[in-house]
This record gives sequence, C-alpha cells and structure tokens, in this order.
Amino acid sequence: MKTDLNKQIDFILEIDKLKQVKRRSYLINEARTENTAEHSWHIAVAAMLLAPSKEGVDVFQVIKMLLIHDIVEIDAGDTFLYDEAGTAAKEEREIKAADRLFNLLPDQQAQEFRDLWDEFEERATPEAKFARGLDRFMPLLHNYFTQGKTWQEHGITEDKVYKHNKIIDDASPELWQQAQSLIRSAVDKGYLDEAKNESGHE
Amino acid sequence: MKTDLNKQIDFILEIDKLKQVKRRSYLINEARTENTAEHSWHIAVAAMLLAPSKEGVDVFQVIKMLLIHDIVEIDAGDTFLYDEAGTAAKEEREIKAADRLFNLLPDQQAQEFRDLWDEFEERATPEAKFARGLDRFMPLLHNYFTQGKTWQEHGITEDKVYKHNKIIDDASPELWQQAQSLIRSAVDKGYLDEAKNESGHE
Repeated sequence: MKTDLNKQIDFILEIDKLKQVKRRSYLINEARTENTAEHSWHIAVAAMLLAPSKEGVDVFQVIKMLLIHDIVEIDAGDTFLYDEAGTAAKEEREIKAADRLFNLLPDQQAQEFRDLWDEFEERATPEAKFARGLDRFMPLLHNYFTQGKTWQEHGITEDKVYKHNKIIDDASPELWQQAQSLIRSAVDKGYLDEAKNESGHE
Repeated sequence: MKTDLNKQIDFILEIDKLKQVKRRSYLINEARTENTAEHSWHIAVAAMLLAPSKEGVDVFQVIKMLLIHDIVEIDAGDTFLYDEAGTAAKEEREIKAADRLFNLLPDQQAQEFRDLWDEFEERATPEAKFARGLDRFMPLLHNYFTQGKTWQEHGITEDKVYKHNKIIDDASPELWQQAQSLIRSAVDKGYLDEAKNESGHE
C-alpha cells in the first residue's frame, strides 16, 4: 500500500518529464527554444506581478492554475497555438493525459488538480480568463523580443496573431492594449508580416 | 518615463535568463542537469502538494517564496550545496544580485519581492522553514532516483548528506523521516558512499 507521501513523490518524479517538452517560443537571447517547465515557472512569476492589478481576481488561484496548466503535455505534447489541425485533436489527447497524470496523486489532490486544470480549460472564471490571457501574452513577448523568430519560422501573419491573441482583452484590457501595441510595432519593424491579401487586389 | 507595466515587462524579460543557470542535479532520466527555472517550477508544484499537510503554514506564501527564491542566481550563479568555499562568498554576491534585479520592478513590488527573498534566506518563519527544507528535499530525490549521480560525481559522502539535509526536520518531520529513509537506502544500494573514517581506525 502506498502512503499519500509515496503517491505525491511518484507524481513529483513523473512531472520531471515536463522539463523535456519543447515549445516553439525561443529564449529571449535566442539560444534555444524553451521547454514547458520553464514556461510554467516564468508565467507564474508574471502572474505574481500582473494579476494583483486586476480587481476581483484571486491571485493564488491564478498561480495554482498556471503551475499545473501544461502538465498534460507530458503525454499529449505541446500543441502550437497556430496549428489548427493539431488543436482540433488536442482536447482528446489532453483529457486522456489528465486522467492518467493527476490520478497518480492521493484522491483529494487528484481531484483538486483536475479541478484546476478544468477551470483553466473552461475559461469561465475571472481567474481562468486572466491565466489564459497571460498564456497568450507570454509567447507574444518572446516573439517580439526575438524579432519575431517563431512567427517567421512558421509563416505566421498579423491577422493570425490578432485572431489568436484577442482573448487577452477578456483577461485584462491593459495587457491587450500592450499586446496590440507590440503587434503594431512588430509589423512596423518587419518582425511580423502583414496578412496576405488573398483576393489578389493589394 | 516607464510605466509600471513597462517595468514589470523589463523584469519578466530579464528573468528569462534563469533558464540558462545550470544546477548540479540531473533530470530523473539523467539526460542532462536541470536549470534553475525548471527547478523553481518543480519545487513550487511540490509545495502545492506537500505544504498543505503542515499545519499553520500559509501555502501561498511558501509558493511565492519558492517561485522567486533563486532569481538572484541570474547574477550570482548557482552555488552547489556542498561547496563550502563557494557558500562563504555566496551571501555577498546574492545580496548584490537582489539589489539589482528586484529594483527593476515598480517600488512596491520591488519591496514585496525583496521581502519574500529575505524571508526565505532568514529561515525564521514557518513558511520559510518549510520552503528551505523542501529546497533540500528536492535534490535528494533527484540524487536518489538517478542512483546518486551528483553525489558520485562530486564525491559526496553520507555524513555530508546528513549534515546538509537535517534542516528538513525543522521544515517537516514527516519529510525528514522520508529523507532519512532515502539516505539509508542510498547507502545500502551503493548510490552514496559511507563517510570515510578519518582516524584510520575502521
């Protein structure tokens, strides 16, 4: 029979694997792409700084969600924001991953972690809206300050960046204002290509 | 004039560097050593799991401390726990780093982060004791589950492991009991060498 502590240690050892899940975003110094464990730390610190200015948001709840929001990637892999085919199949993969991973924990904590992850995914509470918006804002920062490296590599254009990032407005109008200003500046500086005019009339 | 948000973004970009500070501990699959950003995420999740069982400990305070506890390593580098010469000079380097890094933030948050870091360093509050104990427990797990890889590489013996880890008891007697059982088992399995008998009388 495993004690609660044994189960918690099993989970702690298992999630070490998140350090080897690669994301598309580059480190700010462009040395390599970041991994999901690093991203999870970075965004949790960003939430410590940015969530308190959002009235009616429980900062601790935001941080707990962000610390565990990507653990499912251990089984499901990271799905690139702009990969629409990958995104369609993502939900099923991630639910299966959540079932396996969180159930390594003692029952009550398994439920607590699953509830946090579900809350993040559903994007209904103010805390989840904030967390989800910040999860879009971070790659935007990485892109802007690496001169659009990931956008360029994957041929992402301005219209797609707007489309996929506008949920930031729902999280925090101030952050969305900042995001829009970065997107405009990225186009001006040539880090991000304008949308192709598909009608052929430029 | 920089706005608060500009300063917060400067800080968020600056701490990206923590992803390139190497620690001595290996990933559980031994593929490479871990970096300090990954460690900071891993220990924050471990605290979500383990701190609630410690009565009278504010879990959020523990997690905030752990998220920022090693940010000073961006300037000061990681000092190996068993490096006694390095540890002596460490304090001065880290204070200088804290002065520079936290002061990138708006005044009130600069103070808040500095207070968290000071609290962690002073190890006086129940939250700091828990966080510091957990910060010893994590590398012990990494060592045990990589068959003592870091201990072997650096010639660390059982007596040193006891000496440097006994503050875990002060954080949580249950964790210390678990730690002692791992240390004993590590010696039994040959992952960790017994102390040399320096008197020569074995």
